[in-house]
Amino acid sequence: MRIITLLTDFGNDDEYVGVMKGVILTIAPEVRIIDITHRIAPQDILSAAMMIPAYFSYFPDHAIHLAVVDPGVGSRRSIIAVQTEKCCFIAPNNGVLTQIIENEKLVSIFKLDRKEYFLNPVSSTFHGRDVFAPAAAWLAAGTALELIGSGIGIEDVVRLSIPKPVLKDDKTLVGSIVSIDRFGNLTTNIRREDLDRLTDGKRKSDISVYIDKNELTRLSKTYMDVGGNTPLALIGSRDYLEIAVNGGSAKDWFKSRPGDAVVVQTKTK
Amino acid sequence: MRIITLLTDFGNDDEYVGVMKGVILTIAPEVRIIDITHRIAPQDILSAAMMIPAYFSYFPDHAIHLAVVDPGVGSRRSIIAVQTEKCCFIAPNNGVLTQIIENEKLVSIFKLDRKEYFLNPVSSTFHGRDVFAPAAAWLAAGTALELIGSGIGIEDVVRLSIPKPVLKDDKTLVGSIVSIDRFGNLTTNIRREDLDRLTDGKRKSDISVYIDKNELTRLSKTYMDVGGNTPLALIGSRDYLEIAVNGGSAKDWFKSRPGDAVVVQTKTK
Amino acid sequence: MRIITLLTDFGNDDEYVGVMKGVILTIAPEVRIIDITHRIAPQDILSAAMMIPAYFSYFPDHAIHLAVVDPGVGSRRSIIAVQTEKCCFIAPNNGVLTQIIENEKLVSIFKLDRKEYFLNPVSSTFHGRDVFAPAAAWLAAGTALELIGSGIGIEDVVRLSIPKPVLKDDKTLVGSIVSIDRFGNLTTNIRREDLDRLTDGKRKSDISVYIDKNELTRLSKTYMDVGGNTPLALIGSRDYLEIAVNGGSAKDWFKSRPGDAVVVQTKTK
Repeated sequence: MRIITLLTDFGNDDEYVGVMKGVILTIAPEVRIIDITHRIAPQDILSAAMMIPAYFSYFPDHAIHLAVVDPGVGSRRSIIAVQTEKCCFIAPNNGVLTQIIENEKLVSIFKLDRKEYFLNPVSSTFHGRDVFAPAAAWLAAGTALELIGSGIGIEDVVRLSIPKPVLKDDKTLVGSIVSIDRFGNLTTNIRREDLDRLTDGKRKSDISVYIDKNELTRLSKTYMDVGGNTPLALIGSRDYLEIAVNGGSAKDWFKSRPGDAVVVQTKTK
Repeated sequence: MRIITLLTDFGNDDEYVGVMKGVILTIAPEVRIIDITHRIAPQDILSAAMMIPAYFSYFPDHAIHLAVVDPGVGSRRSIIAVQTEKCCFIAPNNGVLTQIIENEKLVSIFKLDRKEYFLNPVSSTFHGRDVFAPAAAWLAAGTALELIGSGIGIEDVVRLSIPKPVLKDDKTLVGSIVSIDRFGNLTTNIRREDLDRLTDGKRKSDISVYIDKNELTRLSKTYMDVGGNTPLALIGSRDYLEIAVNGGSAKDWFKSRPGDAVVVQTKTK
Repeated sequence: MRIITLLTDFGNDDEYVGVMKGVILTIAPEVRIIDITHRIAPQDILSAAMMIPAYFSYFPDHAIHLAVVDPGVGSRRSIIAVQTEKCCFIAPNNGVLTQIIENEKLVSIFKLDRKEYFLNPVSSTFHGRDVFAPAAAWLAAGTALELIGSGIGIEDVVRLSIPKPVLKDDKTLVGSIVSIDRFGNLTTNIRREDLDRLTDGKRKSDISVYIDKNELTRLSKTYMDVGGNTPLALIGSRDYLEIAVNGGSAKDWFKSRPGDAVVVQTKTK
């Protein structure tokens, strides 16, 4: 019983996601379908690309992770399947798989172009239903990727330029906010390893984090390390530096938006 | 392993949908339950009626499609099951199945009135839990519709008057917007066949579409046929004329609402 | 095939719920996972506590009901499992299970503290993924609660003080609004039994309900008992006194908020 996960920007108001599930279950009646979210902002490829590494590794091996954020639907952009050592990703070739291509152990990459595995006819506006869902379902049902598509090279895969933190001097790292969750927690692009490197692995408690002219004078371990309604910095569940407010919303507190700068400074180096 | 799909206006904030699933799984533990959406505007029977044809045909045969948009809950309106050649629909008898009654090949229609297949007691406010869920589950578990209800005639089924496009003269078709999706795409009530008929099947590219004093001078094939942030008209995934903005929202662009007029004119007839 | 239900305040915008499902299916591939809602207001323990009695009894016996509304994540609050005669509840020990502790037939209570049944490492910010999901999955897979935790007494369980209606004199009961659903229906904390007691079980139709200086002069049976766009009082699907507007929203009509007073008076006693 294989698993297909769904990440889209289709929202929960329309029939789109339900229709995709109908197509999948018609082809592969035994498959398990798990929604990640359908509330990626419309056509926000970067947010989807940043979210994928936060969930796929928690799923069983051989899961099929479908990510349909596809502003180019109906154009000549291709559809790709990326097989890694652990699992398989299917997405439009528009950069949404950038983090997989750059960080995972790749086994093979295919351009999915065999129309006999799509619905017929294929609409120009809803490839989620007509192409992505049936291709993932045939794969889940045991069809080899070699039959559904043609092998391509890594150089054929479109990549996003994902904003990375920059070392300003050996004491100062300049990053930015990349996503904001339901609680108003601000996730930055600064990884745990970036902080380890900045502080030579030993002084995590001896840093200051600056956001919007405010200074947070240490790295907390939990939200409860500070008093109620007080801002703090910690390593969040995605393993990136996160800014939060205990019992409140850092988004509201700092009036933050994705892209805003976050600066980390080590004091004792 | 039969499938039950759920279409409701219960929203995702309360326990209502989860409770229905608990009732279903207590009666039919093996059934697959698929959410279409629970975000139909409260008591908007017409939107639900328009959505049903967009998804049911993509599900396996023998699926049971439950649609609970039910402003008359607790009143004397009946509950009906409509068996077609492909699948079965269960809904309040308030017009939500109008498109099925008018367009599908009907096998039989039942009024579901055998209380031994409902929960006991039946509340006056939540028939989704007390009547619809158990009736669908017993059906999924193999109980014949003949046991759950009594046969009725098609004349006993309530129908909505669904707005249809009107031919103003042999060159001009006047339709309207019936739904707006998450992307701000505007779906009209003008079918692909209506356009074929207007243009004698050959001049799809030779039409103009008028919306709110704007003219879209041709029928595009994909969103990408026009430049970024540019409006266009095309046949959408429901097979109706749709107005969209490439990379944007036609709803915001034209400040449109359901019911607004959309006019199509053929130029060369 | 056991069932795990999920009630959280994680929302539907982020990957959090999907990740929990990945963890569960990795440990217990056959389990059924049912979402109740993830849209409890952030950190609103009381709303979650009030919702649990409205759904759990509709699920099959032996279901595992996971409720993760957890402002104290990462602090020293413990995680508990409460086994009742019907099913099992897992939640932070913060009061979310108050209604279960006070009203259900308890079999045993455990503090879940055996780290070998958690993910490793355990983050400080996402116990839904690292502790709750794996603990529930191991239980679903057949592991005894005795192995996952240590028995504790009922006196170790944190309880909320849930607002109860107060008898002002033998003709007057003063309650309050505890939750508002998608339709704007106002659920109070006054049970059907409270009304029976107030009226000696026989005069339900002979009461007045006061809300915000308005008088509703009887208890209706269904929304349709009054004309369109007219307020009414009835016993709702949770078996509590509910105030609604037929075809409209009582929330908007009375500009109500949780905590607002609702008074019931019997006339003939």
